Amino acid sequence: MAHESLKNRFRTVGDGSGFAPSDKLYPEELQLAARNRGMPLEGLRYAITPTGLHYLLVHYDIPVVNPADWRLEIGGLVDKPLRLSLDDLKQRPSQTLAVTMECAGNGRALMEPRHISQPWVLEAIGTAEWTGTPLQAVLEEAGVQTESAEILFTGLDRGVEGGKIQNYQRSLAIEDASREEVLLAYAMNGGPLEPQHGYPLRLLVPGWYGMTSVKWLTNIEAIAEPFDGYQMQKAYRYKQSPEEEGVPASLIKVRALMAPPGIPDFLTRTRLVEAGPVRLEGRAWAGRAGIDRVEVSADGGASWYDARLDPQESVFAWQGWQADWMATPGTYTLAVRATDSRGNVQPSEPSWNVGGYGNNVVQRVDVLVK
Amino acid sequence: MAHESLKNRFRTVGDGSGFAPSDKLYPEELQLAARNRGMPLEGLRYAITPTGLHYLLVHYDIPVVNPADWRLEIGGLVDKPLRLSLDDLKQRPSQTLAVTMECAGNGRALMEPRHISQPWVLEAIGTAEWTGTPLQAVLEEAGVQTESAEILFTGLDRGVEGGKIQNYQRSLAIEDASREEVLLAYAMNGGPLEPQHGYPLRLLVPGWYGMTSVKWLTNIEAIAEPFDGYQMQKAYRYKQSPEEEGVPASLIKVRALMAPPGIPDFLTRTRLVEAGPVRLEGRAWAGRAGIDRVEVSADGGASWYDARLDPQESVFAWQGWQADWMATPGTYTLAVRATDSRGNVQPSEPSWNVGGYGNNVVQRVDVLVK
Repeated sequence: MAHESLKNRFRTVGDGSGFAPSDKLYPEELQLAARNRGMPLEGLRYAITPTGLHYLLVHYDIPVVNPADWRLEIGGLVDKPLRLSLDDLKQRPSQTLAVTMECAGNGRALMEPRHISQPWVLEAIGTAEWTGTPLQAVLEEAGVQTESAEILFTGLDRGVEGGKIQNYQRSLAIEDASREEVLLAYAMNGGPLEPQHGYPLRLLVPGWYGMTSVKWLTNIEAIAEPFDGYQMQKAYRYKQSPEEEGVPASLIKVRALMAPPGIPDFLTRTRLVEAGPVRLEGRAWAGRAGIDRVEVSADGGASWYDARLDPQESVFAWQGWQADWMATPGTYTLAVRATDSRGNVQPSEPSWNVGGYGNNVVQRVDVLVK
Repeated sequence: MAHESLKNRFRTVGDGSGFAPSDKLYPEELQLAARNRGMPLEGLRYAITPTGLHYLLVHYDIPVVNPADWRLEIGGLVDKPLRLSLDDLKQRPSQTLAVTMECAGNGRALMEPRHISQPWVLEAIGTAEWTGTPLQAVLEEAGVQTESAEILFTGLDRGVEGGKIQNYQRSLAIEDASREEVLLAYAMNGGPLEPQHGYPLRLLVPGWYGMTSVKWLTNIEAIAEPFDGYQMQKAYRYKQSPEEEGVPASLIKVRALMAPPGIPDFLTRTRLVEAGPVRLEGRAWAGRAGIDRVEVSADGGASWYDARLDPQESVFAWQGWQADWMATPGTYTLAVRATDSRGNVQPSEPSWNVGGYGNNVVQRVDVLVK
């Protein structure tokens, strides 16, 4: 099947620009929203997200994998190619890490114009305890050759994107792949991966947006040149126009989110809160930088005050925060923003880019106090 | 907090009619789609849906429940009110049932005009193995008095709907509540319920749309008059105009769905299939009626041929089906439809109603064969 012949064989969505006006709904976006899964924000109350509440983005289809047939191949520019079964991987040294994962497209639907893709609002997040074996030792055993520039990771999920048939593939520079926290993960929250989270094995790259943690991992290859596949060169880049090369999305930007207080109005999700002292709470995270400060606002961001931060147990997992608010009758827009250890603070307005990536705009929560 | 004072205190969505034109997107609908969760249709390959892939609709917020404090109260018109802990319930006789659950609003987004609510396409489905203790024996032990008309079930989830503060509540006629398959379920797929599925206890009413299987169950009450709460009298009724009383949604209507063949185009989900013999497969279900026939079409429903049906193991769980299709290059719209044991067959067009309920329209899958 020639790649070229697939171009323009699928229907065009919208006017062909790739963008949707804010008041338009494309059935294709709704279809993606119905199959991908956000974490309801009250889930921020759990330090470890229940497995079935973790966010989920699946580019193509969830593959059905028979673990007896499945093998992980490690090859390319290595001295000793490896072929490992799931049991081989489980017999290697294991590590368990709590890791916050976020989709690079989280917040996309809050940008105007909106890139036509999975229309995330703010829910593409989750934190799980992942268990696996460090990638570094596997790469060492295979003997990655010095002329290697990158490690390429290939999943079993297969589809068409940008008019080309492809398996899902992402690469990492050798130094990023060799960090001690990078795992070949076969368990989540103490159980085998569920199919939708990459069974039997996924890459786990703590601190990075989720697209890097390749699911249904089947092949690892040391390569001499930077990988130019769709998910590296077309998608997941910060660009101001479709033509420019842009800058790759990598580490998760600083963000705090609030578990909305009180009870919701079903349709608008506006919160109804009883007058009196209210504890605001949530979590904050920032790639592998760690959080320095969380502030809340009860006037939509006009004024801010500091929240209390739980102790930081790991830079890879979100950190709890709480703040007191004396609620008096009226309508309010609560807001929360975090600052990371490098001084980066969340913006009040989305920082627009073509693909709708890395939108860590301040969360706003409408509240009616009675 | 007086109920009346909440009316018109939340913002109006759209023009106030409750409907959205097909080309409009309301941020409130997207917000619901981001927190509720469909089952990606390739999940039809599993007879039992992995826990984290099951569909999920949460009306208000997922409550955090401490099982040590939690009790199930059984009261109202009973001779002997009961107060049961989770351990009490687990010590009673248990039963495990595979049950297909579907949201009554599944297919809502395919209606025109669309009721403004959770905009399901076709993914609000799942089948799990639920374990619990039969409700019937608990009701017998409590001694439901003869003047009782209904059993009322109250969940811990609390919110505002129709301008009123309420816990989620649904009722069942005594005869429906007393059926042997109705369970007080504390386990799903062999593990404790995850929070989002009703931990520590939910009602399970096999064959009915999901709204009946009240999650986070805290209270069961025998009552003398039919319950007139929001979820019974306003929502979940088939109506042709907002004013009419309508007919309550109850048993799940007949439906077959197909796991889309081949591989997807990311954005449109159009399928790319290699020419040659293709096995089409999926599942079919119909409340507690059972399936008589599944037919497929490769021409968008102009002509149909029979699929093979797996043996029916239970009328409460979906039944596998397969069909062969000889794919030759071109574009196709595949379709599938089921007929239940009572002769009901899925319609080619949605049967419109105000709330967008029970839309069991035939599924159509666009395919490009190369």
